[in-house]
Amino acid sequence: MAMLSTWVPGVEQDSDFSLANIPFGIVTTPDDSTRHAATAIGSHVLDLKVLSQQPGFDTIFPSLKDNSHVFAAPSLNAFAALGRTVHRKVRAALQEILSEATNHPDFLKDNVQLREKALLPLHKVKTHLPMEVGDYTDFYAGYHHAFGVGSMWRGPANALQPNYLHLPVGYHGRASSIVVSGTPIVRPRGQIRPDPAAAPIVAPCRRLDIELELGCFVSRGNDIGTSISVDKAEEENVFGYVLVNDWSARDIQNWEYVPLGPFNGKNFATTISPWVVTPDALASFKSTGIEVEGRPEVQDYLREEKAESVYDIKCEIDLTTPEGDTTTISRVSTRNLIWSFPQMLAHHTLGGCPMRTGDMLASGTISGPNPSEYGSLLEMSEGGKKDVLLYGMDARKFLKDGDTITLRASCGAQGLKVGFGECSGRIFSALNG
Amino acid sequence: MAMLSTWVPGVEQDSDFSLANIPFGIVTTPDDSTRHAATAIGSHVLDLKVLSQQPGFDTIFPSLKDNSHVFAAPSLNAFAALGRTVHRKVRAALQEILSEATNHPDFLKDNVQLREKALLPLHKVKTHLPMEVGDYTDFYAGYHHAFGVGSMWRGPANALQPNYLHLPVGYHGRASSIVVSGTPIVRPRGQIRPDPAAAPIVAPCRRLDIELELGCFVSRGNDIGTSISVDKAEEENVFGYVLVNDWSARDIQNWEYVPLGPFNGKNFATTISPWVVTPDALASFKSTGIEVEGRPEVQDYLREEKAESVYDIKCEIDLTTPEGDTTTISRVSTRNLIWSFPQMLAHHTLGGCPMRTGDMLASGTISGPNPSEYGSLLEMSEGGKKDVLLYGMDARKFLKDGDTITLRASCGAQGLKVGFGECSGRIFSALNG
Repeated sequence: MAMLSTWVPGVEQDSDFSLANIPFGIVTTPDDSTRHAATAIGSHVLDLKVLSQQPGFDTIFPSLKDNSHVFAAPSLNAFAALGRTVHRKVRAALQEILSEATNHPDFLKDNVQLREKALLPLHKVKTHLPMEVGDYTDFYAGYHHAFGVGSMWRGPANALQPNYLHLPVGYHGRASSIVVSGTPIVRPRGQIRPDPAAAPIVAPCRRLDIELELGCFVSRGNDIGTSISVDKAEEENVFGYVLVNDWSARDIQNWEYVPLGPFNGKNFATTISPWVVTPDALASFKSTGIEVEGRPEVQDYLREEKAESVYDIKCEIDLTTPEGDTTTISRVSTRNLIWSFPQMLAHHTLGGCPMRTGDMLASGTISGPNPSEYGSLLEMSEGGKKDVLLYGMDARKFLKDGDTITLRASCGAQGLKVGFGECSGRIFSALNG
Repeated sequence: MAMLSTWVPGVEQDSDFSLANIPFGIVTTPDDSTRHAATAIGSHVLDLKVLSQQPGFDTIFPSLKDNSHVFAAPSLNAFAALGRTVHRKVRAALQEILSEATNHPDFLKDNVQLREKALLPLHKVKTHLPMEVGDYTDFYAGYHHAFGVGSMWRGPANALQPNYLHLPVGYHGRASSIVVSGTPIVRPRGQIRPDPAAAPIVAPCRRLDIELELGCFVSRGNDIGTSISVDKAEEENVFGYVLVNDWSARDIQNWEYVPLGPFNGKNFATTISPWVVTPDALASFKSTGIEVEGRPEVQDYLREEKAESVYDIKCEIDLTTPEGDTTTISRVSTRNLIWSFPQMLAHHTLGGCPMRTGDMLASGTISGPNPSEYGSLLEMSEGGKKDVLLYGMDARKFLKDGDTITLRASCGAQGLKVGFGECSGRIFSALNG
């Protein structure tokens, strides 16, 4: 792709949404309060519903012939279900019309009327959940997180459970509480047992935490009783990726989770970033995984042809206090995931579990080996024992009301960045019981 | 309700679908291959879509004025979302027109043409999933099951986890693999570790089990960040109940479930009965729960006004061998659940988790204290150590290919029975990997 330069004004060198990205999202605009599709370019949104209703659209987007209505739908599910070949062609065509050297200047670049209608400043539109999520599965593929949290409870010698290196451990999450970046997060109340010798009490969560994760949306699924092949999964079953903050109430989780896993400690909210970044945009940012001593050979159904199977995306976590001071509390790469999404999909469907368009898989908390790379406050504060220092001599062990957490992630060089935008949420006081 | 007798032919004394029941389901018929709503009466189905398109419907069903299209929808979600007041009135109106002493004989009873179109033998229609399920949550409220399985692993002194008597323990299940009674069940493959000293292998499940459960569908939900009140839940949030067989691959589950709970051991299939039985039909069959020694007082948010809060529904499990011989392997009452569905809903939403129309909650395996009342083969075979004897000197520890499991449940006297119909599934060989 030689079209590196766009005619769209104001695309900064460090923008997440360079011409090399072209993510998909769902917006409402000042002129159209019905949810519909858009892409982001620099500090602008290109309204794909408006575009698709323009004469000449079918010529430039032949892969959407008879399907251009997908951009008028309130979620990207119908577009996702068209499959990666279509997504690839649509993204390429969008790059073409947005590039300086476009062969179709009359369609959009020099069409002042259409530009006014279709190209809107990001701050003038509202973003919504990009997908209608059927099922949400949360994995535990962040090796250093699993090791670190396991060490806290059981010591380093027994940190990892016997199954951990053999299969992508995961659990079913709650789809109904997935919210888009910017949605307020109400501190959950719950049963907790601050004194293990006393009876549990009901109170607002006292150990409210974050989990930095990468999320993956399913394009096309599989029938019940069949499996997804690890080497075909990304081409046939992945629509794209978002950032995920899997908010966690550690005290609720700690009391409830034995023996069936996390429940109310997780299901009050999960925030995702609004723009779905495609595997094609991320294709150049694959990496071999991290080395794990003593890692057993994987089973056949998890063995990937290519050694470079995980992404190397640089993530960061910002904490903004109620006073407005922001500290970057972590910087970590997604390379620390020891299972790829194709491996997660192959494992998830090994027994015949059906995936459906819009299902979301999350990676599990991404932490690196060093404290500056931890993906949760639980790790940063060593289980609530140590202060995490913030700007201006402020400190946290867990989140305070009024705190805002913002996740960011990107890869690529200046001017060609492929980023995820923000995944942000602010904590509000628990409601009275 | 004095209308105890129906003019519909062939309603046997022991029918699950007496005039006292009037459950709701989704069918396709020889004349209409689009999914739509129906009720069951004796060995017949009354097609509610056909009925709703009949002149005079609005007069007899004024509560559905402007909403009669809900019966033409492919799931009961839109009907469920209308709320219990409407369900109650619609059920009463159906009982009225189906009763011998109906005041509207011209509408259906004496209308030969409409009867031919709308009243169809059950064996001529196909039943489908009654609801579009958003999220599925599986609880663990069967006290004797939790105690029995816990005793197997940890001995009777430590059988129950510390949280068990304080809160309805539950986990998020997989919605995409919920199937309607009659759907074939493919034995899952999975990672198992038959020899704990050796590496895991991938193989068809060798310990395929059943779990007898009661399921509950949500009518109307709650907004994120708010909770459902235990004393209002059944009136405001419950649509109705079904039988659930939560098929379980014990060997897969055993290897995978630490620390995040069951995953592939459960998500390959969950079978439900097709007819949603309303809380109004079951209102006379409430009971006080079982006595549990040393049970602590419940927290305020779980405390119910009425002592009679769980149902006393008689359930049974039939196993039919590939040779066609059937043995009833268990008979047990739902009274053995130590948490009611309103308590499960109140706990599930305590932290603000949103319920949505169509969400399904299942009770967890229902077992009684005696071996003849166990709800899983795991318990009946004492963890695979003992044969469960079947008709004709046959025996099982777990399920064989070709076995069919059929759950049944009902309450009420002969001629007035409120039953669930069948929740049935047959096991087919695992596909090659």
